[in-house]
Amino acid sequence: MIKIGIVGGTGYTGVELLRLLATHPQAQLIAVTSRKEDGMPIADMYPSLRGRVSLAFSSPEKASLTECDVVFFATPHGVAMAQAQELLAAGVKVIDLAADFRLQDTAVFEKWYKLAHSCPELLKESAYGLPELNRDAIKKARVIGNPGCYPTTMQLGFAPLLKAGIIDAGSLIADCKSGVSGAGRKAEVAMLFSEASDNFKAYGVSGHRHLPETVEQLSKLTSEKIGLLFTPHLVPMIRGMHSTLYARLTQKTDDATLQALFEDAYKNEPFVDVMPFGSHPETRSTRSSNMLRIALHRPNDGDTVVVLVVQDNLVKGSAGQAVQCMNLMFGLEETTGLMHVPVLP
Amino acid sequence: MIKIGIVGGTGYTGVELLRLLATHPQAQLIAVTSRKEDGMPIADMYPSLRGRVSLAFSSPEKASLTECDVVFFATPHGVAMAQAQELLAAGVKVIDLAADFRLQDTAVFEKWYKLAHSCPELLKESAYGLPELNRDAIKKARVIGNPGCYPTTMQLGFAPLLKAGIIDAGSLIADCKSGVSGAGRKAEVAMLFSEASDNFKAYGVSGHRHLPETVEQLSKLTSEKIGLLFTPHLVPMIRGMHSTLYARLTQKTDDATLQALFEDAYKNEPFVDVMPFGSHPETRSTRSSNMLRIALHRPNDGDTVVVLVVQDNLVKGSAGQAVQCMNLMFGLEETTGLMHVPVLP
Amino acid sequence: MIKIGIVGGTGYTGVELLRLLATHPQAQLIAVTSRKEDGMPIADMYPSLRGRVSLAFSSPEKASLTECDVVFFATPHGVAMAQAQELLAAGVKVIDLAADFRLQDTAVFEKWYKLAHSCPELLKESAYGLPELNRDAIKKARVIGNPGCYPTTMQLGFAPLLKAGIIDAGSLIADCKSGVSGAGRKAEVAMLFSEASDNFKAYGVSGHRHLPETVEQLSKLTSEKIGLLFTPHLVPMIRGMHSTLYARLTQKTDDATLQALFEDAYKNEPFVDVMPFGSHPETRSTRSSNMLRIALHRPNDGDTVVVLVVQDNLVKGSAGQAVQCMNLMFGLEETTGLMHVPVLP
Amino acid sequence: MIKIGIVGGTGYTGVELLRLLATHPQAQLIAVTSRKEDGMPIADMYPSLRGRVSLAFSSPEKASLTECDVVFFATPHGVAMAQAQELLAAGVKVIDLAADFRLQDTAVFEKWYKLAHSCPELLKESAYGLPELNRDAIKKARVIGNPGCYPTTMQLGFAPLLKAGIIDAGSLIADCKSGVSGAGRKAEVAMLFSEASDNFKAYGVSGHRHLPETVEQLSKLTSEKIGLLFTPHLVPMIRGMHSTLYARLTQKTDDATLQALFEDAYKNEPFVDVMPFGSHPETRSTRSSNMLRIALHRPNDGDTVVVLVVQDNLVKGSAGQAVQCMNLMFGLEETTGLMHVPVLP
Repeated sequence: MIKIGIVGGTGYTGVELLRLLATHPQAQLIAVTSRKEDGMPIADMYPSLRGRVSLAFSSPEKASLTECDVVFFATPHGVAMAQAQELLAAGVKVIDLAADFRLQDTAVFEKWYKLAHSCPELLKESAYGLPELNRDAIKKARVIGNPGCYPTTMQLGFAPLLKAGIIDAGSLIADCKSGVSGAGRKAEVAMLFSEASDNFKAYGVSGHRHLPETVEQLSKLTSEKIGLLFTPHLVPMIRGMHSTLYARLTQKTDDATLQALFEDAYKNEPFVDVMPFGSHPETRSTRSSNMLRIALHRPNDGDTVVVLVVQDNLVKGSAGQAVQCMNLMFGLEETTGLMHVPVLP
Repeated sequence: MIKIGIVGGTGYTGVELLRLLATHPQAQLIAVTSRKEDGMPIADMYPSLRGRVSLAFSSPEKASLTECDVVFFATPHGVAMAQAQELLAAGVKVIDLAADFRLQDTAVFEKWYKLAHSCPELLKESAYGLPELNRDAIKKARVIGNPGCYPTTMQLGFAPLLKAGIIDAGSLIADCKSGVSGAGRKAEVAMLFSEASDNFKAYGVSGHRHLPETVEQLSKLTSEKIGLLFTPHLVPMIRGMHSTLYARLTQKTDDATLQALFEDAYKNEPFVDVMPFGSHPETRSTRSSNMLRIALHRPNDGDTVVVLVVQDNLVKGSAGQAVQCMNLMFGLEETTGLMHVPVLP
Repeated sequence: MIKIGIVGGTGYTGVELLRLLATHPQAQLIAVTSRKEDGMPIADMYPSLRGRVSLAFSSPEKASLTECDVVFFATPHGVAMAQAQELLAAGVKVIDLAADFRLQDTAVFEKWYKLAHSCPELLKESAYGLPELNRDAIKKARVIGNPGCYPTTMQLGFAPLLKAGIIDAGSLIADCKSGVSGAGRKAEVAMLFSEASDNFKAYGVSGHRHLPETVEQLSKLTSEKIGLLFTPHLVPMIRGMHSTLYARLTQKTDDATLQALFEDAYKNEPFVDVMPFGSHPETRSTRSSNMLRIALHRPNDGDTVVVLVVQDNLVKGSAGQAVQCMNLMFGLEETTGLMHVPVLP
Repeated sequence: MIKIGIVGGTGYTGVELLRLLATHPQAQLIAVTSRKEDGMPIADMYPSLRGRVSLAFSSPEKASLTECDVVFFATPHGVAMAQAQELLAAGVKVIDLAADFRLQDTAVFEKWYKLAHSCPELLKESAYGLPELNRDAIKKARVIGNPGCYPTTMQLGFAPLLKAGIIDAGSLIADCKSGVSGAGRKAEVAMLFSEASDNFKAYGVSGHRHLPETVEQLSKLTSEKIGLLFTPHLVPMIRGMHSTLYARLTQKTDDATLQALFEDAYKNEPFVDVMPFGSHPETRSTRSSNMLRIALHRPNDGDTVVVLVVQDNLVKGSAGQAVQCMNLMFGLEETTGLMHVPVLP
């Protein structure tokens, strides 16, 4: 059994980790920290966990995190990098669901997150936690920077095209739509039901933190300079993410070739489903599961390929991906504890 | 033109007052106060009002409320009673959308609202702002306690039965369901989209502030002691309220008699619609309008009458009712500025 | 492995059975019938099942249902009773998710369902599939009438009170609220998103088919005559059911006694969770799981007990309960394949 | 008073026309036809209209449409062109909310709508009903082809840029999102609440009927060949449309110049609101009103301008625009009966 600690278990990525780990056959939950809720049974905050998680939240001081095998950080940016070194020194692996270990370029990190990076040397050894593109590094890593939800869809959607060198890497467009849970469990007026329901809007069009991470990773797949326009939108649904990606083909490519490119790229991936060419994947077809689905279109037989990508932002876009990384780091079957059938309807 | 001030225009009842008054032919908006948003154009907070409301919020000190003809308080409980006397002294009428002037029994007020009442003598002259049951008093009043949203449905639904003396007043049950906007525009975790959407729950079952107000008013309609069980629930919709009322008939009464009782009671009421016996009114049939609809059932030809009542909680349940009172207080046609057709779908 | 057939797999109870059985360790899916979709891969209709269910729908003629160990009917009323005898003769057990085997009184069945019952003798040996109240009969049965969704909540909510003989059985009120999936996957205008969203209404107030079944079952728990007023409502959410039950205490009973009554009644039940007295269970705390949660209130320390019951209408209210019955019928651990953690948020 | 007929009043554009016309000071409703609902009071189908619309539906034969001044067709494609000539001969003007008079190129019409055009000569004299770009023609027209909902946003969003000749007309991208009411009031499984709620998807990516109409109209604004990629998506909300438009600047243009271009283009338009540069308009800020709002972005100071456009798809996107055209055709103030304040929240 893997002994597991969670720092910051009160938010949506925290409770999602708890949902997944509660039925993971190799997971043993040791401690879930929350300074504010110290002593409160977790199931009192989340009645969905009654009878399934018996632990109470404990303040960080009381939690014996150094006795864990791995600690997940489901915290705001900046928390993991402050505690990672001590844990590693005690032989504990670290998976950060926030941004502390996503960006190798600390100047870029500091520009977008307004925080100095406190352990750049640790950052260097850390692995970016997207198994489909970085599996070997993850297996050997002690520290994981778990990808953002949007970047997961953008990378898996653009990767086969960039690797094949058949699109203009300088004019990528990602028009992305996320369910509201992506904003977290913070009391904010804009995320109230009466504000976000029966409504649709874009946000952060002039700049969003998931842009630099995506560019840094995509740049590894091509020698061309990446130019990416990323437009996030808020959808009145709890979970789910749909990215509509536009890429200009630089050489004549027919539909079958495009489809084969993607099917080949992901043929051994348990969590990436390439649907038939011309499909319209729905976010609900991945709800509460670790699956990500992709479908390709080439409207008007033109020179633009449209890639539709859907996932559950809290699972493949966050907690599920983190558990997938954990499985790899501990030599387990990658799919262990992650084979939930999506809940539909 | 009636010169109008609004204290506390940033919440949902405030913006709803603004929506209604912006097209009211006799209304002239003088000032909308907000200490926190002093100087911010109202339309910056509510883009729906761009081009329609040109005022900015002003801090209470700067607002010339004493120059108004009437001031609406769309504020938390306790604010109106602190300012009412000064306004009245300046000849300004007061309509409070909170609870300060709803309960004549100050002991009950203090028990439920945890506030001492600061002007009990003013309370005595105030009128309870439910025109259908209290029209004459409203016309003559200088101070109005605008009813709560739930109490409006419970009173208009039970009133004809109580007045007719054909039900057991001691065993009333009101199973009520409200849209989320009833909770106001406060940043609270429980009202986040990701918490309140795709979910249903009861709340305050052991006691809700709208109970004593309803009991006090219903008691005026009968000499029997009122016994009322009131169970509020939260519905994942923005606007709308549905009350399912249960009353036990104390004498044999057939369906036609029941129906006639209600049709007769409300035949001259512009904002109460008695639907055919056995109908199932939908909340959306009143959306964004000042209409309240009622339908009667007597299941299994038994001795219990079920009254279904729907309204838009922000209009007939709050801001619309307040404007209806204003119309009466200023001698206008009662329906002035309130004849919106419900928005459906 | 239990060989399983499903008749009528295209509706919501059908796809929910498929979701549950796809990860059930003892289930082997043999055939899923649909006359209309003969030959269509199931995962083409439900992409959530891609990679998890490889079967295609087959027309009833081609399906080898008689080779199954058990056949589930997720069909309209009347289908199961037409096919049950042939299956039983071949040694196949039958679980009907519709109403054919719910009502022992065929006259009542015919009145409410407008169908003559075609196999009354089979009906007699069938068991009503509510394990918490009928476990022994289910274990021995060859034919199960799986309860309706509403009746499950009403029975488990009223049962301890009726058995204890401390309430007036003749004046029960059940004010129930269901998510829209309860209406099934039929193309009906009233269930369109644009009709059912941002809306709330009652329906069938003058009479609903789940009433007679509930009365028949509750009558087994008491010698008094059951009088039940049942008011169903439609909630703009996909899954979830919340029943607010009102019962009049016939003898002085304090809160602790009431609570103990329920805790005792369900202390060994894996799928019934009695929450602390005065709790407000949310439907989402059971979403996609087989759990049902109950909480008690006694407002104003009065003589009415309010029982709040929540469940997922498609799981404990339908497909999950059917699998629970199957586990019992085949001697498996009752919880096998049913320990999903509710999906929240 | 303008005497008005509506053919096909049972759908969402029909009921929206009724909502708008019920309070239009110059409108007199003469007949609303429905073959299927002949004799049924309109308010029985739409209780929101109780007390506001007293007419019953009448079968086309009985309706005296030739006595009207104008007839609106809120019908499927093909109905208006079959009846227009007879009405015109009787001196009645025609406004078609479907596609019969939107496309001047009948070959394109026949390709996309699978219908032969039955009156091409009438088509020639018809006017495309987008007042902001075609006001003069509308004023003089006897027949109006009211624009599609998506095309309205695409045209008003791209027009100033195309007219100014500063973008590459051959590589336009429109990533558009619509509320579910756009699909109409047809009983379709895909539009059920349980299918469309808590879900997001693209549809018609390989080709949608609103494409050719938009290209035909945009082509009038530039001598370049229009290349337009149009991707529609379905949003789980009832009303509202959000179009995210991408255009590549062909010459260096700063933000202020772009903003001035739009402000200048629409400075006299009562129903187009150009918001401050960098704003994020929300669909709800136009809910139930005839307003359309636009905001500009130029991410990373790059060469792509992003235009965000929102409207209520049933008002400015359909019925409201039709009434705006009617006002122009009959010499009324263009805003008559259309000054509703958006309903928010």
